[in-house]
Amino acid sequence: MKNQQERRTIEFIAVGSELLTPYFLETNSLFISEKLQELGWTLSCKTVVSDRLEELKQVIKIAWRRSRLILVCGGLGPTDDDRTRQAVAEVLGTRLVFRRDILDKIRLRFESGGLKMPASNRRQAYVIEGAEVLENPNGTAPGLWLERKGRVMVLLPGPPSELKPMVENLVLPRLKKFGEVRVLRSVIRITGAGESMVEDLIRPVYKSLPAKLQLITLATPGDVQIRLEMPVGGGRPEAQEKAFSRVKERVVRLLGDLVYSTEGQPLEKVVGEQLRAAGRTLACAESCTGGLLANRITNIAGSSDYFLEGLVTYSNRSKTLELGVPEELLGEKGAVSEEVARAMAEGVRKKSGADFALSTTGIAGPGGGSQVKPVGLVYVGLAFPGGSTVTRNLFRGSREQVKFQATQKALDMLRLKLRDMQKEAGLK
Amino acid sequence: MKNQQERRTIEFIAVGSELLTPYFLETNSLFISEKLQELGWTLSCKTVVSDRLEELKQVIKIAWRRSRLILVCGGLGPTDDDRTRQAVAEVLGTRLVFRRDILDKIRLRFESGGLKMPASNRRQAYVIEGAEVLENPNGTAPGLWLERKGRVMVLLPGPPSELKPMVENLVLPRLKKFGEVRVLRSVIRITGAGESMVEDLIRPVYKSLPAKLQLITLATPGDVQIRLEMPVGGGRPEAQEKAFSRVKERVVRLLGDLVYSTEGQPLEKVVGEQLRAAGRTLACAESCTGGLLANRITNIAGSSDYFLEGLVTYSNRSKTLELGVPEELLGEKGAVSEEVARAMAEGVRKKSGADFALSTTGIAGPGGGSQVKPVGLVYVGLAFPGGSTVTRNLFRGSREQVKFQATQKALDMLRLKLRDMQKEAGLK
Repeated sequence: MKNQQERRTIEFIAVGSELLTPYFLETNSLFISEKLQELGWTLSCKTVVSDRLEELKQVIKIAWRRSRLILVCGGLGPTDDDRTRQAVAEVLGTRLVFRRDILDKIRLRFESGGLKMPASNRRQAYVIEGAEVLENPNGTAPGLWLERKGRVMVLLPGPPSELKPMVENLVLPRLKKFGEVRVLRSVIRITGAGESMVEDLIRPVYKSLPAKLQLITLATPGDVQIRLEMPVGGGRPEAQEKAFSRVKERVVRLLGDLVYSTEGQPLEKVVGEQLRAAGRTLACAESCTGGLLANRITNIAGSSDYFLEGLVTYSNRSKTLELGVPEELLGEKGAVSEEVARAMAEGVRKKSGADFALSTTGIAGPGGGSQVKPVGLVYVGLAFPGGSTVTRNLFRGSREQVKFQATQKALDMLRLKLRDMQKEAGLK
Repeated sequence: MKNQQERRTIEFIAVGSELLTPYFLETNSLFISEKLQELGWTLSCKTVVSDRLEELKQVIKIAWRRSRLILVCGGLGPTDDDRTRQAVAEVLGTRLVFRRDILDKIRLRFESGGLKMPASNRRQAYVIEGAEVLENPNGTAPGLWLERKGRVMVLLPGPPSELKPMVENLVLPRLKKFGEVRVLRSVIRITGAGESMVEDLIRPVYKSLPAKLQLITLATPGDVQIRLEMPVGGGRPEAQEKAFSRVKERVVRLLGDLVYSTEGQPLEKVVGEQLRAAGRTLACAESCTGGLLANRITNIAGSSDYFLEGLVTYSNRSKTLELGVPEELLGEKGAVSEEVARAMAEGVRKKSGADFALSTTGIAGPGGGSQVKPVGLVYVGLAFPGGSTVTRNLFRGSREQVKFQATQKALDMLRLKLRDMQKEAGLK
């Protein structure tokens, strides 16, 4: 991570013994840090603590001592395990007071669903003295906003469906009074190169990064993201915006064809928009990717406008019957070969009547590899009006990682082809 | 979460400013808590802290005061941002010492790859005085094991590919000297019922849970897991094992047909094993699931033994051409209908020569719904030797959640059919 922003920070605490097991991932903090970032805030620290009162009190005490702003999620439910209210009250040396109006609201919530309120929910009508109540339209646990001598502690329920709207509608607007910073942001997405190659290519940019600009590289096999962020503040916002754009443009120029989006969109979305703009259609024939390519394409809402059909021809017989791949070719070259990839792409293109067709055939692993055709070897085919092309690829990683990388390659071949055709059309 | 185990606990600290952004999920703690659990340990607390020296020192100081065992991950790299060694040394009032033998190893690592060691890596040859060095075969940062008056702090590198083997090969064996507990474990997986229905069904079990048995329910749309765990210790292990089995069997009996695995396996794996055992084959025809069904089936290594082909017939034309769904049927009943789901399943079964065939047609959303055919409506078809069956389903959630639930339903229909056929065969 290059450069770290000047810090307007918030401390985050998640309460719940289940978050300390291997089965639950604490994800509220990701949502919260994303939203806070939009106002120019960052998290200073995250703590996950159990439901045990003494441990909870200790963590809250430490946070209250060191941080001006604290967000606590979870432990506001109706059961004996929900002790956040009590812990905060004890640390602050204050008490819980019963609020009839809150109880009435909780009861109404149950009754409007035709249910009787369980006695245990009465607990949720106790609030910390002096706290402002934050309404929870999606659950029984109200939130609390506590202010003491310029310090703020916010208590929110743990379930994301309850927490998220409360953060957006109640917490963020209240935080604005502590000041707001506009943040410039760009997410550049790349495929076709690994993290170290991307780092090497953009190295010249590092030398002259504006002090407040943060550059983060995120990599998974088959995909790299470069995130640029810069808070705008101080005297000359236009100069800062210009400096930000210069870095962004330079990164994009250095990476060239590798960049498929500068707005953080997934590749299947970028390609879908290209197809839609060009009024063209697509089909695919998959062997080793086993449906993942069609699945990614159809994860985009509205993809039925350009995606006609996909064939998962796993067996040799289906390659012959569905796609017309000659039996002799399969026998002679093997299913994992350039020739079969080409025949698959051309076969599904012809059959479906689509303008473009993609194909994959390879060895996803972990078994089935050989010296000549190792695990990770994948041929990717593209058939287009007037021709076809095939690439030979050697991917590393697990079965699912090999499948993903093969679909990235397929979509990227189509992206570049569509772009070239558009350029040519422009020249004519 | 019902019952919490007696606690043999470890405190966990992850170091790295990037882990406080919205882009990085801290996942090492999941791996570590899973491995620790096998020895009967749980995490007491997780903290994510930035690279800033003062903040890092404060967090380490607090942990050292309150916990007997502490695991710290990250911040051992060669850059200026890597300050874990320094912070720990300062908190413990000790110093860093240079180790020629470590430097030689790091240099050798570079040279064997044909590279010159960058000067910055020299940093990694400094270790905390009195610490045992834990070798890192997959990276340049060695780990450190520190023991002081019965307290232990372990420093490990952050990258999962380096950390994981070190935890398994170096940390767990050393932790065993603090005692070891055998843990009984079962993961019961369910589809076809939501979390609250599952909770209602197994409620009778709660009344007589053994004190040390922990029961955790995990739910996502279309899938529920019940995890049972119980450390075995004290006088009568057989009695404890029997008590555990009784609870497990009772849960399975109460849930009946809903249970598809008692060993935590995914549904596509369970169905794959049924097909393999029966020597039968499968094909599928997908509309709204867009390839996800084939993708899940082919995520299982060796699935090419029973999976013949999948067709993603997204357009009406492809439903007619590929599957022989009559145009009049599509016109009269619409693509999203019981009749079309049946024709799709029967069509792909006939065409592929498979014994079984699954089909999906529905409205995944977010657009495309109507009063009569709302978003989430999915017909799932199953064709088998001698007949076919179709279910009408109304799923809730996002586009991807609707797709997933439809594939769960399809796989589960096949699971139940295969089981029934096996039962019948057994009776003959």
